Amino acid sequence: MALLNHFLRRRSLHPTSRSTRFATLRHSSSSSRSLLPLSFPTFQIWASNTSLGKTLVSAGLAFASLSSSPSPSRFLYLKPVQTGFPLDSDSLFLFRKLSSLSLLFPPPFPLLLSHQLLNSSLPAARSLLPDCAQGLETNAAGFVELGAYEERLVGVTKEGKPGVLVSVTGWAWKEAVSPDLAAKREGGRVDDAEVLRMLSKSLWNQCEDKTGDASVLLCGGDCWRRGQSRAFRNASVRPVGPVSLVFLVNIKSSIPLASANGLFALLALSKPLRLPAILVGDGRLGGISGTISAYESLTSRGYDVLAVLVEDHGLLNEASLRSYLKNRIPVLVLPKIPEDMSNDLMDWFGNSRHIFMSLRDIMLLSYRERVQSLLDMPKKAGNILWWPFTQHKLVPEGHVTVIDSRCGENFAVFKENENWSMSQLFDACASWWTQGPDATMQTELARDIGYAAARYGHVMFPENVNQPALECAELLLSGVGKGWASRVYFSDNGSTAIEIALKMAFRKFCVDHAKLLDAAEQQIELLVLALHGSYHGDTLGAMEAQSQSPYTSFLQQPWYSGRGLFLHPPTIALCDELWELSVPEELLCGSSALKSLSFNSREDIFLQSRDASDLARLYSSYISKHLSASRKTKHIGALIIEPVIQAAGGMLLVDPLFQRVLVDECRRREIPVIFDEVFTGCWRLGVESAAELLGCSPDIACFAKLLTGGMLPLAATLATDAVFNAFLGETKLKALLHGHSYTAHAAGCAAAVTSIKWFKDPQTNCNINPGGTRLNELWDTDLVNQLSSHPAVQRVITLGTLFALELQAEGPNAGYGSLYARSLLQMLHSDGIYMRPLGNVIYLMCTPCTSPRTCNDLLGKLILNLDKFYRAQSLQDHMLQQHEHIFC
Amino acid sequence: MALLNHFLRRRSLHPTSRSTRFATLRHSSSSSRSLLPLSFPTFQIWASNTSLGKTLVSAGLAFASLSSSPSPSRFLYLKPVQTGFPLDSDSLFLFRKLSSLSLLFPPPFPLLLSHQLLNSSLPAARSLLPDCAQGLETNAAGFVELGAYEERLVGVTKEGKPGVLVSVTGWAWKEAVSPDLAAKREGGRVDDAEVLRMLSKSLWNQCEDKTGDASVLLCGGDCWRRGQSRAFRNASVRPVGPVSLVFLVNIKSSIPLASANGLFALLALSKPLRLPAILVGDGRLGGISGTISAYESLTSRGYDVLAVLVEDHGLLNEASLRSYLKNRIPVLVLPKIPEDMSNDLMDWFGNSRHIFMSLRDIMLLSYRERVQSLLDMPKKAGNILWWPFTQHKLVPEGHVTVIDSRCGENFAVFKENENWSMSQLFDACASWWTQGPDATMQTELARDIGYAAARYGHVMFPENVNQPALECAELLLSGVGKGWASRVYFSDNGSTAIEIALKMAFRKFCVDHAKLLDAAEQQIELLVLALHGSYHGDTLGAMEAQSQSPYTSFLQQPWYSGRGLFLHPPTIALCDELWELSVPEELLCGSSALKSLSFNSREDIFLQSRDASDLARLYSSYISKHLSASRKTKHIGALIIEPVIQAAGGMLLVDPLFQRVLVDECRRREIPVIFDEVFTGCWRLGVESAAELLGCSPDIACFAKLLTGGMLPLAATLATDAVFNAFLGETKLKALLHGHSYTAHAAGCAAAVTSIKWFKDPQTNCNINPGGTRLNELWDTDLVNQLSSHPAVQRVITLGTLFALELQAEGPNAGYGSLYARSLLQMLHSDGIYMRPLGNVIYLMCTPCTSPRTCNDLLGKLILNLDKFYRAQSLQDHMLQQHEHIFC
Repeated sequence: MALLNHFLRRRSLHPTSRSTRFATLRHSSSSSRSLLPLSFPTFQIWASNTSLGKTLVSAGLAFASLSSSPSPSRFLYLKPVQTGFPLDSDSLFLFRKLSSLSLLFPPPFPLLLSHQLLNSSLPAARSLLPDCAQGLETNAAGFVELGAYEERLVGVTKEGKPGVLVSVTGWAWKEAVSPDLAAKREGGRVDDAEVLRMLSKSLWNQCEDKTGDASVLLCGGDCWRRGQSRAFRNASVRPVGPVSLVFLVNIKSSIPLASANGLFALLALSKPLRLPAILVGDGRLGGISGTISAYESLTSRGYDVLAVLVEDHGLLNEASLRSYLKNRIPVLVLPKIPEDMSNDLMDWFGNSRHIFMSLRDIMLLSYRERVQSLLDMPKKAGNILWWPFTQHKLVPEGHVTVIDSRCGENFAVFKENENWSMSQLFDACASWWTQGPDATMQTELARDIGYAAARYGHVMFPENVNQPALECAELLLSGVGKGWASRVYFSDNGSTAIEIALKMAFRKFCVDHAKLLDAAEQQIELLVLALHGSYHGDTLGAMEAQSQSPYTSFLQQPWYSGRGLFLHPPTIALCDELWELSVPEELLCGSSALKSLSFNSREDIFLQSRDASDLARLYSSYISKHLSASRKTKHIGALIIEPVIQAAGGMLLVDPLFQRVLVDECRRREIPVIFDEVFTGCWRLGVESAAELLGCSPDIACFAKLLTGGMLPLAATLATDAVFNAFLGETKLKALLHGHSYTAHAAGCAAAVTSIKWFKDPQTNCNINPGGTRLNELWDTDLVNQLSSHPAVQRVITLGTLFALELQAEGPNAGYGSLYARSLLQMLHSDGIYMRPLGNVIYLMCTPCTSPRTCNDLLGKLILNLDKFYRAQSLQDHMLQQHEHIFC
Repeated sequence: MALLNHFLRRRSLHPTSRSTRFATLRHSSSSSRSLLPLSFPTFQIWASNTSLGKTLVSAGLAFASLSSSPSPSRFLYLKPVQTGFPLDSDSLFLFRKLSSLSLLFPPPFPLLLSHQLLNSSLPAARSLLPDCAQGLETNAAGFVELGAYEERLVGVTKEGKPGVLVSVTGWAWKEAVSPDLAAKREGGRVDDAEVLRMLSKSLWNQCEDKTGDASVLLCGGDCWRRGQSRAFRNASVRPVGPVSLVFLVNIKSSIPLASANGLFALLALSKPLRLPAILVGDGRLGGISGTISAYESLTSRGYDVLAVLVEDHGLLNEASLRSYLKNRIPVLVLPKIPEDMSNDLMDWFGNSRHIFMSLRDIMLLSYRERVQSLLDMPKKAGNILWWPFTQHKLVPEGHVTVIDSRCGENFAVFKENENWSMSQLFDACASWWTQGPDATMQTELARDIGYAAARYGHVMFPENVNQPALECAELLLSGVGKGWASRVYFSDNGSTAIEIALKMAFRKFCVDHAKLLDAAEQQIELLVLALHGSYHGDTLGAMEAQSQSPYTSFLQQPWYSGRGLFLHPPTIALCDELWELSVPEELLCGSSALKSLSFNSREDIFLQSRDASDLARLYSSYISKHLSASRKTKHIGALIIEPVIQAAGGMLLVDPLFQRVLVDECRRREIPVIFDEVFTGCWRLGVESAAELLGCSPDIACFAKLLTGGMLPLAATLATDAVFNAFLGETKLKALLHGHSYTAHAAGCAAAVTSIKWFKDPQTNCNINPGGTRLNELWDTDLVNQLSSHPAVQRVITLGTLFALELQAEGPNAGYGSLYARSLLQMLHSDGIYMRPLGNVIYLMCTPCTSPRTCNDLLGKLILNLDKFYRAQSLQDHMLQQHEHIFC
């Protein structure tokens, strides 16, 4: 502090006014979503409490890096947020301390230093510049844009190659309180995104400059300027090599700062960067606990902690920490820091230097290992993993996506070819239709899962009860099962939930049709009634309930026989801005009047009043005819449908009227009805259960995927009392003898409990309507219409979190095996969207919490890339025609 | 401190010498494993750092509880571990402070107080008793057993009903450092179990006394005694009612104390109690972070935090805390604590009283809700859950087990009938064969799962790679797949892993036998070769690979047809201390010479030298005959076996020689071999893969259950390169089109990575042999032999973590549907062991980390209860005979 006062007396800082400075800085990376270059190491320093010497550690690291002769480093120190300013300024401390060290440390080392102050609150600026306090102005965000800097060149000779220190403070407030409180008291609001942008840009700037003009700064000596520091903007002194750089982002004095009314959620804020962490622990009495807790708060948010440092207070805290950490990461002990404020710390830095050298080595080694691991992963993965639904021969060399983490809807993906960058990709396949959480919810879910795992591990379910399983069942029955279901049967995934549902349905059928069975003994064969193009899972029982498809060929599953009566369903899609019905020929029987029905709006499709239409009668008689046909010993024992949307079949919107009539006809014949809501349930289609859209209830329904919010495998089969009763009896042999080891595992149920509540609560999910019953429209109608009339597009479907389109394609370009969409998806990948095709059908899938703005961004990018794709295809067609023309 | 010194000058404490005092205290609960009575509320106070006023909060709570007229409470304050003693003594502080408050607070309230010091280190005792410092003696654990107490009666009138405060310190050291360090410097070691025992007993003592003799103490007034305090031992003043009592166990000054070389792992220590937590947070600068971290350290260990308190430092930390906690739990603000050490705090307590009253109400409400919820759970569960493998009609009313948590191998189970107690039950069904972790490993796994969930949520797998999935695959290939497997296919559970394995095997068969297929087109039908009594899962594909059983009846799965050639395997079991082979008639073909083969030891069963025996030739010709038989269009496309142990089939040990010959015969015919290691893998049988016991490798193998250490569903199907290559081609349609949404989910893979490493590392798993290849023998040979010759026992199997026995039973008492074992299992349940039968086969299953001592305890209890069971059965038989005799 004394040091800083001294500095302030000597210098007069003057604010500048360039409100757009940061806005005009641009990334050099090819993708606009590239967050972080990995071509040099970057770290983040955390401390388990205030005043533990975090800034000293930063300075010590800078010292160790910059004094290493003959290869000094370039060292960037970023302090985004500072309170207690200007009395406290960590970045200035580094600047001053390194200046002194470079001169006084034996032997002295040459150094080029820059220190910058960017923004501050008005009181902080006034305190800093009492002379011109009246003339200070704040911008719209409430900050004075100081934008001042100081540069120095110390101890440079012709021979000596100087180290470079760039030390920056982003935003500062005067009062020494938490930033959110300071902002409340002094004004000056900066949002997470802006801090993140500043960090990301500062880091990218370090890679950017290819034409460093060392001379300018080398000649400058001590120089005070307004405007932007050259050292900061231009890497004036060339990096010595990618791995000799140590960059530090010292985000916050202690962890974790709570969201505090939305101003700063720093841990959340820096999550997309997920910089490797150095933790400055507490060597004092009680410090073991605080250090471990801080370590756990970091790891429970997915951060990697590389090393822990503690100051030596003679309490041997390090021994306990090492024991806790099981030597997985090093614990370094720093000499006691002199308490005398007038001590210049030169001796302390000298005595600590070897510790900081070790720390620097640990950090660099870890960086090298991390990058090497990221570089190696694609090849290793290609060699040992066996991906589902993937023809390994068609995966191009080097086209394996390395997913380093996810934060809400976005992957962090390592891109070797783009400056070794870590980029954000929107996960538009919703990691195969499971995803629900935004970044906040993900953290909450992770904590709830950790809690449940710690509390329960896994506990036996039959004849027992545990709280998460019970609460999950209660929530399911009062939510998706409301009004019809009374029992919940847990399993692990959609496919097992379907197998269980089929067993339930068949038993119910057998009990209801006991006479039939008694007469026939076991001569009868049970079939399901299902729709062509429906898909219910990959285990044999689930497969038998679907019609022939690429999944069911002899090549894939020699035991498949297709134990169903499969009907062709009428479907609806948005084509040229119109929702149009397509009725299969087989169903029409020549009555062409109904062939070209269309709807005024999507809402009209779901109107119950359609039950009285001619179309309903047509559907009814068609279904009735099939159900009444004699099949000798074969009986329809269950109806199984995916309500409204047949997903894996190509995102087909089946006419809900048709499905409603199907249910009615089956009910009249005492055929149990199964709704496969594995895909459609839990808000995927904008309502908690797709049965709400259909306007009728099943006897049995299956849920999975979004059930846990997209975190863990869990499935539930819900059933009515009547179904349950079909399994009651005096012997265990009559019970439903199907189960999996992890039935109702606590971690999955806990995640489901949190998710079910989260999605329908307007306090946590902004997309929910006031009644908590529907998601507001996520996809902009104009953009959707525009896409539906795009020349490359066959049809479009939007409903809830789903946007799907079928590309115009013919012959081998159409169907599940088609690779037609690949080039389009690669363009979108480069544009920050991760998608997977269903042949020539592509889709964007968001979470129930994704903002409509994000959805519109996605649609916008899709349109742009679709244009490009279409032009390329047209050109290709044209050239092909030319070619044919010439050669014919 | 001044207060305490004053107290010490006035009183002279004298040590007593009753080393067995605590050992002679006995639980009143019927089960020796009952840890905790829930008939009154008990809480634990934690603080996010030292010196945050945790003891003041305890005193404030005591004050609020004891001063509430006209129904004062009984308040027990337990401070198990104290350092800085006698200058610091929290329990004495409470005693003194409440004495003062009862007299000075307007209006004064009558109080009966007791304060006790039990054990201390020698330096602490000398400091406390300088007069007799030379005469002090330490016991074997290094403690002086002070065992002194002080009692007082304050402000009692004839009318006034006094509150009762009992304030206890368990173990104390002199130096104000962490307890482990103090113990190292001063001597005095106390292990976790002893602290836990003291806590548990102290609490049970509160329920125990039904004959409180109030007069003795009421007359006593101030009285110093040696020996045990009456107030502590006898509830001299009757509890006012179960919910008006507030008991506090103030375990440690800050959280979490690391294990610190094994002396104290207090968080782990108190985990079996899992008392609801009150967290005293930090109101100072930087305190938000520390408080949140502490909260997270508690929740990530499965603790429930009821409320957070912070001292008001004017920084509004409570606002940030409330925002973080989303108002799920209350944050209470205490007035600033006077810094002046001479302040008697009377005013502060007066000003804080309403806060403490609120806190007390919150705690009592939470207690009532918790107990009510525990009481309600069985009925609710019976009403809405649908348990697998359970005939709901046979579940007796009130026989639902409420599992509140698990800690390592033990459940914490709520027992309404036993004093509303929370009891420990050893989970001997290893929660259906999945469990691996001891308590330490469970905490580590929970943290790793939380980390992975926070870092990744779930990320898309096909054509992508994430670190946990890759590392898990690498560990599998270098572990259970070593020497044969080169690819890993992930899925969700054993059943799906098997379906995938079958698809792999059939494809491989088709590729290897292409000519056969070309000739027959799709006329051929593929069968598996499998063993009777084997079990591979509940989905249809897995079921088709097993022979008829109760699981496969038309009633259960109308689609089952049994697509296999099923052979009867020879089995081995320990009967009357001898490992005997039983060869099925069908296999012997009359050659009775081999019928009664037995082995000298279990090891002999697995000798490879048996390959040259006559028996091997017999096996070979039998298998060969079956494989060569003509089946027209049917072909054996795969062999599938559970290596060594057929689990669900009744824990049958199949002769490994027979399985080895089977594998050989199939290899010779190019029939792919699948090992179903879902049960047998991952150390269940004492080796990482049961293939090691068999001495041969498969082409495909399935793992699940123990794969994640028993935390989350995850399965892996491993395959050779040759199998993988059968799916390569130019089209996606040739790829293996089977997958589940959560394929290779990061949390599951992370748990698997930790588990795989943990089990084979001698540093983490004491049971592993030096080479890291086998578990040491867990089950005592003598006890096992004793059981094998028990008259109630048919046969015994032990291998690795498994001990199984078949009860002698006939007719309906035998087989899967039998309820014969029920009464035995209920006895064992009362004796602290949770088991589930497979009909008349029962088993004890431990984790790969369970100590042999624990296993012996289990066997001991089993023998005792088996005796009881046998006597009861014999008596019943006898009476039946008598009955028949009379009536015939």
